[in-house]
Amino acid sequence: MATVSPTPLLKDELDIVIPTIRNLDFLEMWRPFFQPYHLIIVQDGDPTKTIKVPEGFDYELYNRNDINRILGPKASCISFKDSACRCFGYMVSKKKYIYTIDDDCFVAKDPSGKDINALEQHIQNLLSPSTPFFFNTLYDPYRSGADFVRGYPFSLREGVPTAVSHGLWLNIPDYDAPTQLVKPLERNTRYVDAIMTIPKGTLFPMCGMNLAFNRELIGPAMYFGLMGDGQPIGRYDDMWAGWCTKVICDHLGWGVKTGLPYIWHSKASNPFVNLKKEYKGIYWQEELIPFFQSVALPKDCTTVQKCYIEISKQVKAKLGKVDDYFNKLADAMVTWIEAWDELNPSGNISAKIPNGASK
Amino acid sequence: MATVSPTPLLKDELDIVIPTIRNLDFLEMWRPFFQPYHLIIVQDGDPTKTIKVPEGFDYELYNRNDINRILGPKASCISFKDSACRCFGYMVSKKKYIYTIDDDCFVAKDPSGKDINALEQHIQNLLSPSTPFFFNTLYDPYRSGADFVRGYPFSLREGVPTAVSHGLWLNIPDYDAPTQLVKPLERNTRYVDAIMTIPKGTLFPMCGMNLAFNRELIGPAMYFGLMGDGQPIGRYDDMWAGWCTKVICDHLGWGVKTGLPYIWHSKASNPFVNLKKEYKGIYWQEELIPFFQSVALPKDCTTVQKCYIEISKQVKAKLGKVDDYFNKLADAMVTWIEAWDELNPSGNISAKIPNGASK
Repeated sequence: MATVSPTPLLKDELDIVIPTIRNLDFLEMWRPFFQPYHLIIVQDGDPTKTIKVPEGFDYELYNRNDINRILGPKASCISFKDSACRCFGYMVSKKKYIYTIDDDCFVAKDPSGKDINALEQHIQNLLSPSTPFFFNTLYDPYRSGADFVRGYPFSLREGVPTAVSHGLWLNIPDYDAPTQLVKPLERNTRYVDAIMTIPKGTLFPMCGMNLAFNRELIGPAMYFGLMGDGQPIGRYDDMWAGWCTKVICDHLGWGVKTGLPYIWHSKASNPFVNLKKEYKGIYWQEELIPFFQSVALPKDCTTVQKCYIEISKQVKAKLGKVDDYFNKLADAMVTWIEAWDELNPSGNISAKIPNGASK
Repeated sequence: MATVSPTPLLKDELDIVIPTIRNLDFLEMWRPFFQPYHLIIVQDGDPTKTIKVPEGFDYELYNRNDINRILGPKASCISFKDSACRCFGYMVSKKKYIYTIDDDCFVAKDPSGKDINALEQHIQNLLSPSTPFFFNTLYDPYRSGADFVRGYPFSLREGVPTAVSHGLWLNIPDYDAPTQLVKPLERNTRYVDAIMTIPKGTLFPMCGMNLAFNRELIGPAMYFGLMGDGQPIGRYDDMWAGWCTKVICDHLGWGVKTGLPYIWHSKASNPFVNLKKEYKGIYWQEELIPFFQSVALPKDCTTVQKCYIEISKQVKAKLGKVDDYFNKLADAMVTWIEAWDELNPSGNISAKIPNGASK
């Protein structure tokens, strides 16, 4: 049995969001770590199918009929037949923090052979500050046994609130279809014992497989876009959310951490199917990255919602000509925010933009 | 005995630069790794003292008299009674690559107990590209067993030339005096098995203890400033070089890597002495970081020398009012470039500034 701390951290302040199309047997392995928490299961695909959840877990489950009923016409912004549907779970949660995990992710072991409590490590990441304005060569200065190194400005050592904790994957790495095809046998066996802040102004590929965030701070930016059924692309849901989130965190002066914890990613998805989903994204991305690198948010964008609406306008203005899909996506971004605000009437966190934090 | 590759990498293209005031017994431990290479020893302090170098090493040694003889009046730009004098070694080298190490740094062991060939790892870092324009969550994508993750733009996967490889330290971490005083017993025991590119636009604290660079690319920016005897500060030599270097690498489209390899840093320097050397730097640094974050280099700065002279002008214009020391430092920066060009008459590498690389 793995050792679990007697009072789980943030027990009543965190929801675990799981998108799925199958029985959740994978939860058995996570029982020692997840059982004290509330789960939000977003059932994708056929709503008449019954998803079995192991005994003893506290959960609510939403299928497509529930999503349509709760959001009405606004349900159009929630993807169908794609794990992007998970963001509906972020919207209906009433908690301050979210952890989301895929149902093919198992408990990994650290180099000493001990089971890794991924959720606990994510919570530690979220509860300790970030350092986006200057690089610390010994990684996270707030970890035990580490600190800021010589030459790190003292005025920046307080850090800023952490909005996102991005965890990694042992075994099957999160590769795109071309890389999967070229390196079918590659496995990630390197356990890197580090957590770090992604510097301000730097974009990163955010993977939704093993991800935690402060919903109260950044929730409305965690929209996973229009993917899957009826859409021209897939597998860019988390990337889209990551780019929007990072730009907004940079503007509002919040941090994004990546590194520990690892989960064990059990099986690679089909690279041929992935290629079909990804190929337009691979091409469009070459325009998306310069776009997000150049997004400028005005000073009066002091809430995530305002930032997000502003980005949707710039998406329409600048990416609409890349493909009409981006016009639809921009509209869906607005619908998402409307739906979010309906379900979270008092959820508008206003950030005091710190000196030097805004571009 | 440690295993050494039969043909050491870059044997005739790399010099090892060591600043010292004592006999170089520490080289015994490095013999299996360093003996094939040429050493440049920069003797600090009393030039009449004889520094003993263990048998069998190929070296040249310069003391203060040599520096004064070779540089004449321009010797004023080389610090005295401070390890900043090491940069004289970079200037007189005729090789493409430099590795510099302190004489209190020993061979560290990796988690499997194997001696780490720090030099070989630095060379691997310098010979593989960097990725400063987008963050890769699985760290260095060019390492064996790693690659670019899903969502990494394909147009950026070629990378850019690596100019600097910044290695880390087990045992005594590189802390400033206040942190040394507060945490006298802290030791770095965490071996982080990662190498990463420091993103474009992000400054970092470059430590000169375990550092390699491509001298042909970035050498003229590796000036360690005016420290020690007759100067108001110390222990900011490597930091100064790091900030100038990073700004120039960002402008010219080159990469800076940090992480592996580790050396074993054997003993902490005296925190009371360090505090005396550092205290003005700790205060000034609060102005230096915003300064370097806002340095803009014009398009016609296409060589390191031109960039460096431009920075010296901005130092004088903007930091001269912080303290007159910066006027002297700005002049010394110009002297350094003049001396460099005298000793390296054909050494002006002109960079093709890549699209999007310049600010």
